[in-house]
Amino acid sequence: MNLITRLKQQWRSILIAYRFWKIVQAPYGDFRGIAQLSAAITDEENAKQIFEFLSSYPQGKQALQELPRLGKVDLQQLHQLPNDTLGYIYADHMLKNKFSPPPTSEVHDVASFLSAHLSETHDIWHVVAGCDTNKAGEIKLQGFYAAQIYPSKLWLAMLAKNLMKTALEDIELCGDHLDALTQGWMLGKRAKPLFGIQWNKLWEMPLEKVCEQLNLHELPTSTQANEAVLSRIG
Amino acid sequence: MNLITRLKQQWRSILIAYRFWKIVQAPYGDFRGIAQLSAAITDEENAKQIFEFLSSYPQGKQALQELPRLGKVDLQQLHQLPNDTLGYIYADHMLKNKFSPPPTSEVHDVASFLSAHLSETHDIWHVVAGCDTNKAGEIKLQGFYAAQIYPSKLWLAMLAKNLMKTALEDIELCGDHLDALTQGWMLGKRAKPLFGIQWNKLWEMPLEKVCEQLNLHELPTSTQANEAVLSRIG
Repeated sequence: MNLITRLKQQWRSILIAYRFWKIVQAPYGDFRGIAQLSAAITDEENAKQIFEFLSSYPQGKQALQELPRLGKVDLQQLHQLPNDTLGYIYADHMLKNKFSPPPTSEVHDVASFLSAHLSETHDIWHVVAGCDTNKAGEIKLQGFYAAQIYPSKLWLAMLAKNLMKTALEDIELCGDHLDALTQGWMLGKRAKPLFGIQWNKLWEMPLEKVCEQLNLHELPTSTQANEAVLSRIG
Repeated sequence: MNLITRLKQQWRSILIAYRFWKIVQAPYGDFRGIAQLSAAITDEENAKQIFEFLSSYPQGKQALQELPRLGKVDLQQLHQLPNDTLGYIYADHMLKNKFSPPPTSEVHDVASFLSAHLSETHDIWHVVAGCDTNKAGEIKLQGFYAAQIYPSKLWLAMLAKNLMKTALEDIELCGDHLDALTQGWMLGKRAKPLFGIQWNKLWEMPLEKVCEQLNLHELPTSTQANEAVLSRIG
């Protein structure tokens, strides 16, 4: 290995350490920090592994060829649908949390498509995977991503970040957060692939039916960690 | 908060970041690095929480009063026991891996007892919890510790460290390592408490019986991650 390559590798290692620790110390939901960590940690080889994985099933392969977008989402209009539909429940989740409609950033290749697709479907995944918007819910969804966008250096780093944050700031949530990681990972492994689904064709379908078709019903292990740990010795 | 307290906190934060990243970059099994990270991250409050947890069941409470030690272990002698016993299987595990008999460091209070007890029983926990000595096996055992020595900043940090190491060095083991964490955490929650057990009274008991009594039989989810992830989309 020549000097330039070695220096580049050392610089990359320092950059990852710096951006990792910066996001450990930032408040939850620091999207700029996530993007910076992603840029530092996701190398060409890992991107290739992920695209190979996503291309290994028809829905993923098709999405990477056609780059389908969610398009503009009218939350008020979706909120008029029957209240058991995906559209209504998604809109209700967005409106109650005062979230803006999903971003519609431009796409020019598969890498920017992957990023845009995950951004614009993030809250739909929240709803169908049964993840709250609290810390445990975000960790559960990261465990779910780790199984579905596989094998991802970024999602491993995000899970590591949140375990460190739990240690340093929220030790009383230790059980909830390890339960969430566990549930998300197991659910993500068991579920059918969500990447590439054209959700805008499913707004009128009952959420229950969507979840059933995607094998996304709740796992039986969703008991509260603290209760389980404490009852074991009670 | 006065200046001295603020400076102390900032210094502690820098120390944790430094020791965390040092152990991310160290080879697996860097016991000195683990001890240094433990010293930086485990504060009085967290130690108190852990001792309260361990004191909340009779076996733990008694161990913290009597501070029982494993004593000197003669691996060759244990290896003469019938080959279904805990003693034989433990000795076999130690001899095959060329491990030295467990350390017998001095104990002068509950904190040094906890540390000595976990050190000297570490490989017994490996055997009874069904954890290999490879990377996945160590991660499974860390997930198990996180449930049994609860709530521990150190074990959360160790799990975070190993997820980062997986991202940076072993991305092809991503599925195995998240499976291991998940299995260890779930098994540790479900099992009876191992802390405080006087293992030297159980050498002659069949391992199967020990595991049965401790509710330590294997979980049904122990399939290989990659197979499960890939078969789901096959």
